[in-house]
Amino acid sequence: MTNWTLAARAAKMNPSVIREILKVTEKPGIISLAGGLPSPKTFPVEAFAKACEVVLGHDGAAALQYAASEGYAPLRQAIAEHLPWNVDPDQVLITTGSQQALDLIAKVLIDEDSRVLVETPTYLGALQAFTPMEPQVVSVASDDEGVLIDDLAAKVGSGAGKARFLYVLPNFQNPTGRTMSDARRAALVEKAAQLGLPLVEDNPYGDLWFDNPPPAPLTARNPEGCIYMGSFSKVLAPGLRLGYVIAPKAVFPKLLQAKQAADLHTPGFNQRMVAEVIKGGFLDRHVPTIRALYKHQRDAMLEALEREMAGLGVEWNSPQGGMFLWLRLPQGMNAIELLPEAVERNVAFVPGAAFYADNADVRTLRLSFVTASAAQINTGIAALAAAIRARLGQG
Amino acid sequence: MTNWTLAARAAKMNPSVIREILKVTEKPGIISLAGGLPSPKTFPVEAFAKACEVVLGHDGAAALQYAASEGYAPLRQAIAEHLPWNVDPDQVLITTGSQQALDLIAKVLIDEDSRVLVETPTYLGALQAFTPMEPQVVSVASDDEGVLIDDLAAKVGSGAGKARFLYVLPNFQNPTGRTMSDARRAALVEKAAQLGLPLVEDNPYGDLWFDNPPPAPLTARNPEGCIYMGSFSKVLAPGLRLGYVIAPKAVFPKLLQAKQAADLHTPGFNQRMVAEVIKGGFLDRHVPTIRALYKHQRDAMLEALEREMAGLGVEWNSPQGGMFLWLRLPQGMNAIELLPEAVERNVAFVPGAAFYADNADVRTLRLSFVTASAAQINTGIAALAAAIRARLGQG
Repeated sequence: MTNWTLAARAAKMNPSVIREILKVTEKPGIISLAGGLPSPKTFPVEAFAKACEVVLGHDGAAALQYAASEGYAPLRQAIAEHLPWNVDPDQVLITTGSQQALDLIAKVLIDEDSRVLVETPTYLGALQAFTPMEPQVVSVASDDEGVLIDDLAAKVGSGAGKARFLYVLPNFQNPTGRTMSDARRAALVEKAAQLGLPLVEDNPYGDLWFDNPPPAPLTARNPEGCIYMGSFSKVLAPGLRLGYVIAPKAVFPKLLQAKQAADLHTPGFNQRMVAEVIKGGFLDRHVPTIRALYKHQRDAMLEALEREMAGLGVEWNSPQGGMFLWLRLPQGMNAIELLPEAVERNVAFVPGAAFYADNADVRTLRLSFVTASAAQINTGIAALAAAIRARLGQG
Repeated sequence: MTNWTLAARAAKMNPSVIREILKVTEKPGIISLAGGLPSPKTFPVEAFAKACEVVLGHDGAAALQYAASEGYAPLRQAIAEHLPWNVDPDQVLITTGSQQALDLIAKVLIDEDSRVLVETPTYLGALQAFTPMEPQVVSVASDDEGVLIDDLAAKVGSGAGKARFLYVLPNFQNPTGRTMSDARRAALVEKAAQLGLPLVEDNPYGDLWFDNPPPAPLTARNPEGCIYMGSFSKVLAPGLRLGYVIAPKAVFPKLLQAKQAADLHTPGFNQRMVAEVIKGGFLDRHVPTIRALYKHQRDAMLEALEREMAGLGVEWNSPQGGMFLWLRLPQGMNAIELLPEAVERNVAFVPGAAFYADNADVRTLRLSFVTASAAQINTGIAALAAAIRARLGQG
C-alpha cells in the first residue's frame, strides 16, 4: 500500500467556499448574483480574433516558444506606461492572472506563523493564496472609507511577530464594493511608512469607475513601500489569465525566481494577443463601454433594492464602480441560512461570512451586478426579498 | 523606511542556473546546444490559426470567461483516452505547463525538512519547484537503466524521516537522455509499493521516441501509487503552457485546491485551442514529423561526436528519443571551466553540475540536439572539440 503523507499545509487548504456555493446554485433557470463573472458581452471577441491572426501570422514561432519569466517586453512596457506613476518596465512581472501574483507574494513574504494583515472583510482568493504558506491572518477593522488607521497600528505587531504586510483592495473592493477615500489613502500610506509596514495593493477593478475615477493608488504615493497588482481580467477577458505585479527592487528578484519555479512563464501567445489588442488605445475606447453597462446594471440593482426591500430592515451600499454590492440583513438573520430559501426562489448570492478572516458578520452578503442583465437583476432582487420575507415570517 | 522581511524560503530560492548560463551565451552567431527549446519548425502554426478561428467563432464567450479549476472537460477526456492505462477523466487536472504540476505537488506533499528522493542527476526545474517548500532532497544512485533499487531502499528513510516520494523522469530523461528499462521499471514499482513510497512520474518526452516506443509508464503499473505528469509543450508548442497531472483520489482534491489558490485555472482559451487542434487524430500525424526531425539531428550529433572527439577521452550516450544527450569530459576536466572556452568558439552547452541535488559530477555536460540544425550541430560539435583540445593543451 502506498503511503501518501500529505504536507501539514494541505490540511489547512480548503475548496473555495464560493465555488462550492456556485455548484449548489447550478440549477436551470437560476439567476446568479453570486459569481464574479464579468459580463461576456464585454469580451472583445472580434479584436481577439484579429490579434490571433496578426500574432500567428507575423510572430507565430516566437509566440509558441518558451519565453522569459519576466514576461513579453512590449506588454511590460505598455503596462508601465499605462500606470499613473513613474514605473520602470523592469519592475513589471507578468503573472498567470493576478491570483498567481498572490501566490508568489505569499511564497516570498510569508513564513509559517508570521502575521499578515487584511481588511474586514477581504478578498477570499487572497486568503486562499496565503493559506498554503500558513500565516496568522489578522483582520484590521474597516469602515466605508477603508481600514481604520488606529486599528492598523494596534494590529501591526512587533519584533518577530510584526506583520509582513497589509493586503488591501482600495477600489470597488471585492466583496464590499467600497472604495478607500483619498484622505484614508494618504493616512494609510503615511502610517504604513512610519510603521515600516509593506502594503500589497490589489487593483483589479480600478478602471471600472462609473462617474469619477478613484483616488490615486497607494503605490503611486510610496512605490518603494508597496507591491501593486493589476489584471486584464476585468477590462478585456479573464479566460486569458493575464495579470501583473509592480514590485520594488527589494522584492522583484525573488518574485521572479518564484515565478520561474511556479510555471516558467505566462503563456507568450496570450501576452502577445493582449499586447496586440491594447496597442493604439483600444482600452480607452473599450473600457467606457464596460463602465456604461455595469453602471446601468448597478442602477437597476439599486432601484430594485429600493423597491423590493422597503420596510424589511435591510441595508446596502451604493458602489461607485466595480462589480459588487454589499448587503446586510435584518438583525438576527443569517445569510448562510437564507441561501437555501433564495435558491428555492431561483436566485443565488454569496454569504458574506466567506470573506472574513475572523469574526464574520453573518448578516452580510455579496451581490454581483455584472453577470445578470438588468431584467434578471429585477427578478432576482424580488426573489431575494421574498426569501427574506419568508425568513422573517412575512412570506 | 519600509521593512521588507522576506520569508526564510526566499533565501533558498535561486535564479535558474540554466537561464543565467543562457544569458552569458547570448552573443550573435553562437550555436546553442544548451537550451531545451523545441525546434520552432515543429510548431503547427497553421493548425493553431484555424483552431483560433473555430474557438473564437463558435465558443468565444466561454473561451474568454473564468472556468473550472479542474480544466476543460473535453481536453481532460482526450488526455484520459490517450493514455495507455485506464484513466478516469475526473483524475485529470490541467496545469499551466507541467512546471506548475511540480509546484502543486510540492505544496501538497512536502513539509519543511521532509525528505524527497530524486534521480542522479535530475531535472533542474523539479529541484527549483520543490525548493520553496524546503525539503531535504536526496539523490538515489542511478545507472544507464535508471535508479538503483538497492540504493532506493537505503535512502527511503523511516518514520517521520521517510521520503514523501521519488521523483523520476523515465523516458529520455532531462538532462541525460537515458531511458529506464522495462525490467528496472518493474523492479522500481514493486519496491516502491513494498516500501509504501509514492512515485511522481514526469513524462514530457515520452512521445518523442525514434525507433521504438519506451516501456509502459510506471503509473500504468500501479496507478494508486503514482502521480503522473504530462505536457503538450514538446508535441505541440511550449508557449501555450499546457500540462496535466493524473493523480489518485488520495491526493487529487488537494492538488485541485492548490491549483485554485495558485492561478484559479489554466487559460480556457489555450485549453480549447489545444482540444480543437488534437481532435481527429492530429497528434498521430504530427508527432512522427517531430520524431523524424529530432532523430535526424541526433544522428548528426552522434556522427559529429564520433568524428570530432576521437582520441580525446570523451564519453557520451546514444539517446533513443527526446531532446538531450549526456557527455562526460576526460578525467580532470570541469565542464563549468570549459564553458568560457566553448563560448569563445561560439558554442554553448549546460554544465551537468546544475542537475545534481548533491555530489555533482563536474565532468558532465548536457547537449541539446533539437534547437540547432544538423549543419549547426556539425559546426558546434567541432567547436566544442576544439575547446576541449585547448583545455587539454592540444589546442
